[in-house]
Amino acid sequence: MPETKIPYKIYLDESEIPTKWYNVRADMKNKPAPLLNPATLRPMTAQDLAPVFCDELVAQELNDTDAYIDIPEEIVNFYKMYRPSPLIRAYFLEKALGTPAKIYYKFEGNNTSGSHKLNSAIAQAYYAKKQGLKGVTTETGAGQWGTALSMACSYFDLDCKVFMVKVSYEQKPFRREVMRTYGASVTPSPSETTEVGRKILAEHPGTTGSLGCAISEAVEVAVHTEGYRYVLGSVLNQVLLHQSVIGLEAKTALEKYNIKPDIIIGCAGGGSNLGGLISPFMGEKLRGEADYRIVAVEPASCPSFTRGKFAYDFCDTGMVCPLAKMYTLGSGFIPSANHAGGLRYHGMSSTLSQLYHDGLMEAVSVEQTSVFEAAEQFARVEGILPAPESSHAIRVAMDEALKCKETGEEKTILFGLTGTGYFDMVAYQKYNDGQMTDYVPTDEDLAKGFAGLPDINL
Amino acid sequence: MPETKIPYKIYLDESEIPTKWYNVRADMKNKPAPLLNPATLRPMTAQDLAPVFCDELVAQELNDTDAYIDIPEEIVNFYKMYRPSPLIRAYFLEKALGTPAKIYYKFEGNNTSGSHKLNSAIAQAYYAKKQGLKGVTTETGAGQWGTALSMACSYFDLDCKVFMVKVSYEQKPFRREVMRTYGASVTPSPSETTEVGRKILAEHPGTTGSLGCAISEAVEVAVHTEGYRYVLGSVLNQVLLHQSVIGLEAKTALEKYNIKPDIIIGCAGGGSNLGGLISPFMGEKLRGEADYRIVAVEPASCPSFTRGKFAYDFCDTGMVCPLAKMYTLGSGFIPSANHAGGLRYHGMSSTLSQLYHDGLMEAVSVEQTSVFEAAEQFARVEGILPAPESSHAIRVAMDEALKCKETGEEKTILFGLTGTGYFDMVAYQKYNDGQMTDYVPTDEDLAKGFAGLPDINL
Repeated sequence: MPETKIPYKIYLDESEIPTKWYNVRADMKNKPAPLLNPATLRPMTAQDLAPVFCDELVAQELNDTDAYIDIPEEIVNFYKMYRPSPLIRAYFLEKALGTPAKIYYKFEGNNTSGSHKLNSAIAQAYYAKKQGLKGVTTETGAGQWGTALSMACSYFDLDCKVFMVKVSYEQKPFRREVMRTYGASVTPSPSETTEVGRKILAEHPGTTGSLGCAISEAVEVAVHTEGYRYVLGSVLNQVLLHQSVIGLEAKTALEKYNIKPDIIIGCAGGGSNLGGLISPFMGEKLRGEADYRIVAVEPASCPSFTRGKFAYDFCDTGMVCPLAKMYTLGSGFIPSANHAGGLRYHGMSSTLSQLYHDGLMEAVSVEQTSVFEAAEQFARVEGILPAPESSHAIRVAMDEALKCKETGEEKTILFGLTGTGYFDMVAYQKYNDGQMTDYVPTDEDLAKGFAGLPDINL
Repeated sequence: MPETKIPYKIYLDESEIPTKWYNVRADMKNKPAPLLNPATLRPMTAQDLAPVFCDELVAQELNDTDAYIDIPEEIVNFYKMYRPSPLIRAYFLEKALGTPAKIYYKFEGNNTSGSHKLNSAIAQAYYAKKQGLKGVTTETGAGQWGTALSMACSYFDLDCKVFMVKVSYEQKPFRREVMRTYGASVTPSPSETTEVGRKILAEHPGTTGSLGCAISEAVEVAVHTEGYRYVLGSVLNQVLLHQSVIGLEAKTALEKYNIKPDIIIGCAGGGSNLGGLISPFMGEKLRGEADYRIVAVEPASCPSFTRGKFAYDFCDTGMVCPLAKMYTLGSGFIPSANHAGGLRYHGMSSTLSQLYHDGLMEAVSVEQTSVFEAAEQFARVEGILPAPESSHAIRVAMDEALKCKETGEEKTILFGLTGTGYFDMVAYQKYNDGQMTDYVPTDEDLAKGFAGLPDINL
């Protein structure tokens, strides 16, 4: 087939929004290790998980056999508000870099939450509503997940209680107002409103908070409040499942033009975007139908893949959640205070951890000043001001494209542009003022986190 | 033709981006009155305008005979970054209101400037670059225009100096950072950096600024700096011309589904969005080919159409600009300090003023608490957090849809959703906290502004 002139933005029809999520675990030979009950150290059952998560989400969490799971019609309808998201050919960036590489990005920022998080938020809110719950609790770091969940809860008239990592709460007052506009309540974490929050504050006065800590608080409130459950925006199998819409749409759009990516790049904090973007491509790779280089990009200041241990660990700082086997820096790890964006979780999705452990994907870490440099260049030529998190993927996509410039290779690069940086202007200001610094934890820093890993790994 | 099921979002192909702007003045029997030279009170010639505007833009400003003007290829290419913009069927809003009306909105907020302003910014930057200029100066109120121009100037490597109305500068620090990220310099207006700024500060110490005042400062700097010209984001004929892409795309999208709007609604400050949205529809109306109800919506606190005088007035507070015949509150008019959004210009596009004067369109004014009420409801059901300015149109679209609910009429309503409110969270916070107030100027307030109208009107 002759190469068709590819438009700047490939939009699918609404009828092409996926009606089934793809569950990559079904195609994995080595399944991700099960969650463990922290009391018994035995695999969590549906019954164990029921007080924390909605029943249908528990079923999705534990399902590693069905490759496809139907998306309820009401969720597909909601998706139509902002999906299909565009797959954009980065013609302007290619020209600016002078690269023979062909760069595509799947842009998930064209909705008010500003990121891909809405894909899972609406699913989780839907199942909570279906189960007749009154509300949900959650944590948020950079704020995209909390905003997404607020929007989803408002749509289904559910109460929404958000614990926001304190450093983000302070740096992003306007994120809070968006959540409030959608009817959510927002509490900076660690807070005095929970037992675990009070404990952490007593042990670490002046802490700027962490996702692991905010999770503990949200779980505590969910478990102790009638008619509430806890929902999480990343890390979990169910979240990766919901986020598969990103990869499914991207693959459909590429196939329309007969394009096969050589390299697929995504930023990784807990793994929701990366896991969603790569899932159908990884499926082909697992089934031996195709091969791709798949690259996770993480901050050098929170390097779970590249410097963490593959071990069972607590998912939260308060150690009230189940244990997951994953690449982790230890549940007590908190990134240094100068870390500007999200991607600050101490662990990583079990599914992605297993895939990485099995050599099916790579990981690199990058420092934040070089990330903001890439973000600024991208903003100026592509016209989208990216979120700091997404800019980790931009950095590496640009690096790969520059390698192609040296070698003359016309590689096709696909990366995930998870969201916009409109609520990250404090970080951009720091960069604009030349005040941004990097920090790479020393081995001693990391040793402290590892010291807190549970004995089960011995 | 049987009614096709209409998608939530109608996206045109990139090949359907207009390649010609439509100049509504060509079809007007009563042409807008010419700009007058403030020194001679004679119509401004191209020569008079050349020190202020680029040559090609001067030609566009004065051209009231050519119905179509070619869009240079480089501008069409830039448009592909973010255009065609979607035409959205407000199914969720219709359902929430329980109206038989069919509501469509043309959404111009899916770009980093957050509004339609980029449509004219890129055109003005292009012609400035083509003329070999070093840079441009401008004013910005709510901040969308300044951001749009920063993006456009960055693309063409032009220097960009922005005077930002002081109240917005203070309420929107992050807007400034977006502009800086795109390489612009931003000065709060009135400032001590210009003669006219110092004069205004001396006369009105503590003023929160106005667009008219920021214009005077920007013009002063442009005229006195080698290689610079002034650009304006609204009011002018050239801007309405560039913004015609909004209406042209909307009309093409509607025609694909055989839809003819009954009512077309847009917010109006200087008139750029409204003028652009309605232009091709107004063209049909002027040529007697179709009829539409066309409604301008303005803030009750800055009611140039509904309570202003149709008279020659200065376009700026400092009275350094040409005089325009328009609906005006007087160039000294400054909206009360509790006015939260944009739409704070004292006058109105000459073209729209003439059309309104000739009875070809209507105007209504609305108070801001009712505007934010509409904005919140819209955000919750349609998933887009709208700009305060755009929400004026939402308010009236909802009111019209609710009238249909009473009468049972299935009217088709089209409105312009000019942008997003991500940088307006201070105003939303005020609303969320129940602190937002309304202010409608008294006749005495308005009389003060009218007292400053130039003698030429006598």
